[in-house]
Amino acid sequence: MRGTVLHAPGDVRVEHRDDPAILQPTDAILRVTAACVCGSDLWDYRGVNQVTQPTPMGHEYVGIVEEVGGEVTTLRPGQFVVGSFWASDNTCAICQAGYQSRCVNAQYVGLGGSQAELLRVPLADGTLVATPGQPSADLIPGLLAASDVLGTGWFGAVAAQAGPGKTVAVVGDGAVGLLGVLAAQQLGAERIIAMSRHEDRQKLALKFGATDIVTERGDEGVQRVKELTDGLGAHSTIEAVGTQESMMQAIRSTRASGHVGYVGVTHGVQIPGEELFFSGVHLHGGPAPVRSFLPELIDLIWNRTIDPGRVFDLDLPLDQAAEGYQAMDQRRAIKALLRP
Amino acid sequence: MRGTVLHAPGDVRVEHRDDPAILQPTDAILRVTAACVCGSDLWDYRGVNQVTQPTPMGHEYVGIVEEVGGEVTTLRPGQFVVGSFWASDNTCAICQAGYQSRCVNAQYVGLGGSQAELLRVPLADGTLVATPGQPSADLIPGLLAASDVLGTGWFGAVAAQAGPGKTVAVVGDGAVGLLGVLAAQQLGAERIIAMSRHEDRQKLALKFGATDIVTERGDEGVQRVKELTDGLGAHSTIEAVGTQESMMQAIRSTRASGHVGYVGVTHGVQIPGEELFFSGVHLHGGPAPVRSFLPELIDLIWNRTIDPGRVFDLDLPLDQAAEGYQAMDQRRAIKALLRP
Repeated sequence: MRGTVLHAPGDVRVEHRDDPAILQPTDAILRVTAACVCGSDLWDYRGVNQVTQPTPMGHEYVGIVEEVGGEVTTLRPGQFVVGSFWASDNTCAICQAGYQSRCVNAQYVGLGGSQAELLRVPLADGTLVATPGQPSADLIPGLLAASDVLGTGWFGAVAAQAGPGKTVAVVGDGAVGLLGVLAAQQLGAERIIAMSRHEDRQKLALKFGATDIVTERGDEGVQRVKELTDGLGAHSTIEAVGTQESMMQAIRSTRASGHVGYVGVTHGVQIPGEELFFSGVHLHGGPAPVRSFLPELIDLIWNRTIDPGRVFDLDLPLDQAAEGYQAMDQRRAIKALLRP
Repeated sequence: MRGTVLHAPGDVRVEHRDDPAILQPTDAILRVTAACVCGSDLWDYRGVNQVTQPTPMGHEYVGIVEEVGGEVTTLRPGQFVVGSFWASDNTCAICQAGYQSRCVNAQYVGLGGSQAELLRVPLADGTLVATPGQPSADLIPGLLAASDVLGTGWFGAVAAQAGPGKTVAVVGDGAVGLLGVLAAQQLGAERIIAMSRHEDRQKLALKFGATDIVTERGDEGVQRVKELTDGLGAHSTIEAVGTQESMMQAIRSTRASGHVGYVGVTHGVQIPGEELFFSGVHLHGGPAPVRSFLPELIDLIWNRTIDPGRVFDLDLPLDQAAEGYQAMDQRRAIKALLRP
């Protein structure tokens, strides 16, 4: 099959790879309908994460079940499915608490690289959710978004306790931040402050439900959020970048008693204990338990209540994956969809 | 009046100080019935916090209203009251959210030094809670505990979401940690693991409701907690020390999806973002909003449902305050009560 492989920073190629096979009786093999490039893939692409060997890329996917192992009971070939980047048994105590991304038997689906024609998904019964039928073409991007970037933005909003009566600030205008705006709106937030300096992203934030745009960053951005909230800060802040600056911007934008939901994969962040102590905020985040939200998200997309697929502003055949990475790296695209 | 003053590390004296006066019409002056030495006072006493001038000490207190300012409406001279170390108006949005310790008009009561005969309490209506009548002598220690150390342990347990069905770990066997055990028990926790190496404190922890004692610290302590919890870690962990080691011990003792309530005043702590991200825990803490819990705590003490006063194992006249500090510094005493 053809699949995307990162050889070195900036060097991503689509090349021949061995077809994946059923290794465990709980596995499924999918024929990938669509995959995409994640903001977190750029950490590897930019060399921030060291890449020591050719690495299959991609952990977001929707597709059609091609084959299932002997112990898979809830799925059958031909079904259209959405899954998370963490495979989970969905039965352990941690899964039952709603944290499938930290399942005691968790396996990283991305190891196989979803930017490819075929993908092995471990723990298929616990990981994959079938759609009510074969989706029409216009639903594919939205369902693909659910597999990570929507689920992650949604978790950020849930972790930040976005809801009725709340003012929600969103730090980061990548796809996760933008879908954090959409999630906050769906969860009933009264006011949503999107922090963005890019006009195209501001427009999408407004479409997704943002009520205010703050273009300033860092301490100036914090100051603007406070001006918009009686000097107190937001009730809820979604952090969707993962840098020291964005984390501190999120904590400082939040009022004492408020909640910070951080979902940007943290890189080199050190949170000063004293400042956090006296901030009085709640801090929660991490790898999103997308699986726990999938049934609800699929339903909202299927019924066309939400259209998270709008974050894909670049739609490429898989063979042009390199262009997808480059466009996102250069911020020419918010998010690139790849079709095998 | 006589009051305690810290002149330099290790040099605490009881000496003559000016009587406090009503400065604002919202002030009250209390005649202090009992005060005490806090674990956080030891940061100053030990020179960890720099003391640059003679500093009145103490921020925990119960007493009798001596005088009130012209705008105080809910209190009158002669009432016995309990208050928090943060004065709060109890009406602003942050107070109404239950975070009186971060009231937009908060003032630190400890500035006046409660280890003294008289104490000025700002924002008296919002800060002080009167008991149903004059307490009998045996209730004084418990009511004094409510003014900080019980309220702080209680907040730690609430922030850690201790409750029915939960296994709660408590890091720190000082008075706050021990009363965190008591709080977890009152909140209905199923299992309470007290982490303590000191036999006398272990005994008190067991009296307060601990079901298990772990004597190991650091990574070994984490390992023991995991062994006691099917390898997962506690649902809820109360951090009641404030050091790097204790904070990391608390985070690592908690299962993904669990809650860490940290109430030890953090000193030099840096929380590594990556580890926190992948831990999947909720982190919340800070200066306890004692005021929000006072009505409930006073009721539990008044009805003799709980006896948090047991944490005082040294009862001294105010003039012997120096011995109280020394005994706590040398860990000969858990907590010293001072009677002016």
